[in-house]
Amino acid sequence: MIKAGIINVTGYAGMELARLLRFHPEVDLVGVTGRSSAGRQLDETFPHLDSMDLPIVAQDELEGVDVAFSALPHKASAEACVVALERGAKVVDISADFRLRDVAEYESWYNVQHPAPHFLEEAVYGLTETHRNDIIGSRLVANPGCYPTGALLGLAPLVKEKLIGPDVIVDSKSGVSGAGRALSLNVHFSEANENVSAYGLTGHRHLPEITQELQETDPDIEWSVTFTPHLIPMTRGILSTIYLKPRDNRIPISEDGQKRLRDVYRDFYADEPFVRVTDDPPQTKQTLGSNMTQVYPVIDLRAGRIVVITTLDNLVKGAAGQAIQNMNLMHGIPETEGLRGIALYP
Amino acid sequence: MIKAGIINVTGYAGMELARLLRFHPEVDLVGVTGRSSAGRQLDETFPHLDSMDLPIVAQDELEGVDVAFSALPHKASAEACVVALERGAKVVDISADFRLRDVAEYESWYNVQHPAPHFLEEAVYGLTETHRNDIIGSRLVANPGCYPTGALLGLAPLVKEKLIGPDVIVDSKSGVSGAGRALSLNVHFSEANENVSAYGLTGHRHLPEITQELQETDPDIEWSVTFTPHLIPMTRGILSTIYLKPRDNRIPISEDGQKRLRDVYRDFYADEPFVRVTDDPPQTKQTLGSNMTQVYPVIDLRAGRIVVITTLDNLVKGAAGQAIQNMNLMHGIPETEGLRGIALYP
Amino acid sequence: MIKAGIINVTGYAGMELARLLRFHPEVDLVGVTGRSSAGRQLDETFPHLDSMDLPIVAQDELEGVDVAFSALPHKASAEACVVALERGAKVVDISADFRLRDVAEYESWYNVQHPAPHFLEEAVYGLTETHRNDIIGSRLVANPGCYPTGALLGLAPLVKEKLIGPDVIVDSKSGVSGAGRALSLNVHFSEANENVSAYGLTGHRHLPEITQELQETDPDIEWSVTFTPHLIPMTRGILSTIYLKPRDNRIPISEDGQKRLRDVYRDFYADEPFVRVTDDPPQTKQTLGSNMTQVYPVIDLRAGRIVVITTLDNLVKGAAGQAIQNMNLMHGIPETEGLRGIALYP
Amino acid sequence: MIKAGIINVTGYAGMELARLLRFHPEVDLVGVTGRSSAGRQLDETFPHLDSMDLPIVAQDELEGVDVAFSALPHKASAEACVVALERGAKVVDISADFRLRDVAEYESWYNVQHPAPHFLEEAVYGLTETHRNDIIGSRLVANPGCYPTGALLGLAPLVKEKLIGPDVIVDSKSGVSGAGRALSLNVHFSEANENVSAYGLTGHRHLPEITQELQETDPDIEWSVTFTPHLIPMTRGILSTIYLKPRDNRIPISEDGQKRLRDVYRDFYADEPFVRVTDDPPQTKQTLGSNMTQVYPVIDLRAGRIVVITTLDNLVKGAAGQAIQNMNLMHGIPETEGLRGIALYP
Repeated sequence: MIKAGIINVTGYAGMELARLLRFHPEVDLVGVTGRSSAGRQLDETFPHLDSMDLPIVAQDELEGVDVAFSALPHKASAEACVVALERGAKVVDISADFRLRDVAEYESWYNVQHPAPHFLEEAVYGLTETHRNDIIGSRLVANPGCYPTGALLGLAPLVKEKLIGPDVIVDSKSGVSGAGRALSLNVHFSEANENVSAYGLTGHRHLPEITQELQETDPDIEWSVTFTPHLIPMTRGILSTIYLKPRDNRIPISEDGQKRLRDVYRDFYADEPFVRVTDDPPQTKQTLGSNMTQVYPVIDLRAGRIVVITTLDNLVKGAAGQAIQNMNLMHGIPETEGLRGIALYP
Repeated sequence: MIKAGIINVTGYAGMELARLLRFHPEVDLVGVTGRSSAGRQLDETFPHLDSMDLPIVAQDELEGVDVAFSALPHKASAEACVVALERGAKVVDISADFRLRDVAEYESWYNVQHPAPHFLEEAVYGLTETHRNDIIGSRLVANPGCYPTGALLGLAPLVKEKLIGPDVIVDSKSGVSGAGRALSLNVHFSEANENVSAYGLTGHRHLPEITQELQETDPDIEWSVTFTPHLIPMTRGILSTIYLKPRDNRIPISEDGQKRLRDVYRDFYADEPFVRVTDDPPQTKQTLGSNMTQVYPVIDLRAGRIVVITTLDNLVKGAAGQAIQNMNLMHGIPETEGLRGIALYP
Repeated sequence: MIKAGIINVTGYAGMELARLLRFHPEVDLVGVTGRSSAGRQLDETFPHLDSMDLPIVAQDELEGVDVAFSALPHKASAEACVVALERGAKVVDISADFRLRDVAEYESWYNVQHPAPHFLEEAVYGLTETHRNDIIGSRLVANPGCYPTGALLGLAPLVKEKLIGPDVIVDSKSGVSGAGRALSLNVHFSEANENVSAYGLTGHRHLPEITQELQETDPDIEWSVTFTPHLIPMTRGILSTIYLKPRDNRIPISEDGQKRLRDVYRDFYADEPFVRVTDDPPQTKQTLGSNMTQVYPVIDLRAGRIVVITTLDNLVKGAAGQAIQNMNLMHGIPETEGLRGIALYP
Repeated sequence: MIKAGIINVTGYAGMELARLLRFHPEVDLVGVTGRSSAGRQLDETFPHLDSMDLPIVAQDELEGVDVAFSALPHKASAEACVVALERGAKVVDISADFRLRDVAEYESWYNVQHPAPHFLEEAVYGLTETHRNDIIGSRLVANPGCYPTGALLGLAPLVKEKLIGPDVIVDSKSGVSGAGRALSLNVHFSEANENVSAYGLTGHRHLPEITQELQETDPDIEWSVTFTPHLIPMTRGILSTIYLKPRDNRIPISEDGQKRLRDVYRDFYADEPFVRVTDDPPQTKQTLGSNMTQVYPVIDLRAGRIVVITTLDNLVKGAAGQAIQNMNLMHGIPETEGLRGIALYP
């Protein structure tokens, strides 16, 4: 059994890790940390976790784990990851700290000095489907953001085959849990309910992560990405609508092109356990609580555009689930272990 | 492996049975039936069930199962259950057809002639926690309604010990999925959202079920139950608030009485895997997607009343989960098998 | 034109006052105060109020008004009301400070010393329908709480006629805006959405207000009230379900009694512009944004109980609307002025 | 007083017309029609309209009105409009029947034969802000669709000034009431709640309406519009996010361009009572129940795109409110009459 620890179990990603690890057949969750809740029992703080008999400890008390998941905010997370690495654990970092390879880029987007830039080269970007081989051998995985996961899984097949031009628009609609458990007026129930709004219009922190991956996968062109996240009145789920144009007519705007497009996606994801290419426009509810991503590519024959729609649960494939998927790979166990749960519908 | 079939998989209870049985370690789901969807694949109809490679068949094609779950509407369900019984299967009926022992009572509440009254005596009322021994030996279990499950689990400890008087008020707040998948204006999104209303004020069909159980458990007094269900704008979950008075001061209205009250509940439910007696008022979200019921008893010291609050997921403990719990008992396998999933929070 | 001011316009009751007063034909809103927002324009803080060209000023700068509405938290509100009274304004206090006549009762429930107990005798409890005559001549009205408004309008006809016994249960379901604009985890979107819970089980501050009114209206008996508020996932609206028993069979448990019961309500509210006695169970959505209260009395013939259901919008009849209704009376203008808006449905 | 009638008052647009006309100072609502509800009183069918003492009559009984609003489905609406016109009334048609000038285009999108093509030339497209002069003199106005209203108000300033290229992407997020009151599974509460999905991906009927207006306003280029509507879990409101590129660098991608862009919008909408150009990203809740549209233009400096966000209430500015705005113009009364209500927030 792999001994696992969760750093900062008291946020939504941390709680979700606890839920999923509880019945992981190869993992023993041996330690969880919290800040204000340290000293209390896990099930005292979260009654729904009452089958889990674990004290919440302070961060530096997490010892003897084979793998540590960090669900701390950025900067604090990198610091904790370094401690865990030095204690010999493998680490999956759910924060943004090791996602951007360029330290200046990181520091400009996050307005902090990077606490551990020397680990950036070693860290592997943990979008499992596109970085699987690197993840297998790594000891530090930077788990992708929830938005980039949905955007990049929608883009990957076309980018790899160099089928689209540089103009990429990602219009994402997210449930409110993506904003985390910290209180603020925009996620106050009475303000967020029966309401929709866009945010991050001058630049959301998940944008450079998307651009970096596109640029690395296909450096032939300079990618130009517009990313607009929206907050919608539900708890979980992200739907991303991606607008593209074929590169040099490599995908014809025709019924044939439509068939070709779907084949590209079906081929690319043929063996993926957690990506489903759908025949109909997907719904976020179809992935609620599961690690699945749904991808639906379609051609707008009138306007000559490709539209790709993806859905996922931001706390599972967008955070805790993908973190476990990566951990499975890092420890050489089957990738789907602990993650086979079906979506809660309705 | 137990071979199981679901009759009418296309309603919410049927879909939830499929979700839960998919990874039940002792069960092989071999057949599912539908009406308008017969002939299609299960995952074609419900994309979120795509790991389930099963055709939806017509009802009379369900053969060779060890246990059949019926999730049909009343009357049609009894008819299907009889066929399954005659084919040698054990049956858990999620409809109301075998819950009321008095056929006249049934026919008066449901306005139909009972299609199989001769099975009423044999049927066991499947509130697992209070009828466990009878369920173990039975071949026909009448799975309780979602409201009665929450109400009766809140009442059982006090009724068994004859600690309360005959006046029982159950005020229940239910998510909309309890109304099922059939279309009607009161569950149309734009009408049900941002709205609360009471219904069934002249008598909801779950009332006689509650009264029958109280009367059978303690026939010393004539129970007088007011039950008011309310529809609230969420998908899953029922919270029931139960108002009671002690019988002959058997629970003193005092801090000591409060302690006594909690002990009664803790003792009664000490070994129950799916009932949690909580220290704080419970929330429906803490049981979302899980088979757990939360129970919170408290004394209103000013007014001299006992208030008991229960929460559960109407589609799990209130339907599919309890059905599987009963099936486990009927087949002699551990009661929690297939049901250990933790609530999805938030 | 009456010159009006709103003290603490930045909470939900204050904002709602601004919305309603904007087009009140007899009122000129001349000043609004805020704390952290002081110095900004009203429409800069709240874009939806952009037709209102007013600066938000500090509290002590509110001068020259004929009537002041205070929407401050308790204690701070009483202090501000005294200042306004001393400056010659009439005052409607939306806080709880002048609702309870017994200063010791107030101090025990609110854990503060009352800042202006000498005004308690003068203050009139502003449940318009039952205190209209006192309100007309008063200069200080204590606007009722949102829950007591719904509870007392459901009880008033029966209490006045002494038709019910002392046992009163009020089970209320409230939208989240009743908790105000202050941030806390229980009204964080991801926690409150898809969730129901009871709170205040050991005594909600609106309980003594309900009891006081019952006791004053009918001192013959000692009233015993259990009040259980619940938080449900919607923004506005309260539905209260009230459970009662007839006193000495004064309302027979029969079809005749049912007719009698409805007549009592229809007679009592015959001339009320803001109370509608309904023929069907009412829905909160039918009062969304309007000053209307719906009342539906029914007899549970099986259990021998009276059940009364009321609905209202907690920010209108439960706060700002009733405050304006009272102001209209205090200034001798038609009671419905500024309040005729119809509910937003759906 | 203008005598007005509502044809099909029982849908959401019809009900909203009733709400708004109730207190319109220049209008007397003298007749409302319904189909299944004919013969009942308006307030019997819709309790929230109880101040409206009107019988619902059959369609052909609507006589003697100066203006008729038709809120029927397409085709049936055109037929009813012709009758009203022939009886001498002015008509605002909320259906799609008179929006598209090309009868073949209409018949191809709506799969019906147009019942009154001879009125197409006379009909004026009722986007008030861009067709005001034509509306003033007309007797038949085709009220725009809810999505086109939001899209076109976001586009109009740039299209008129020929500042953008032909590539237009409109990504819209709509509350569920836009789908109307007719029952279907995709707007069943349990399916639509906690869920987002795109629809109409092969061509939504509001697309040709958007394209027609762009093409007529600026025929220099061939417009290429992708329009993707999404259903989100709220009742009212549409937020549209529009992605554009400047034509021939007419808006520079720079801080100066940003200033220029905002000036274009501020100038264009300077005198519009129902369009607010905002400084921050707008929220649908800020227009709930009001006739306001909010417009927010911004430049994505990294990707070189213009992003415009608009919000409105689909039942007010997107249907009933704009219909009344047009009626005001047609009858020579102030455009804002009856429409000054402020949004319900929160």
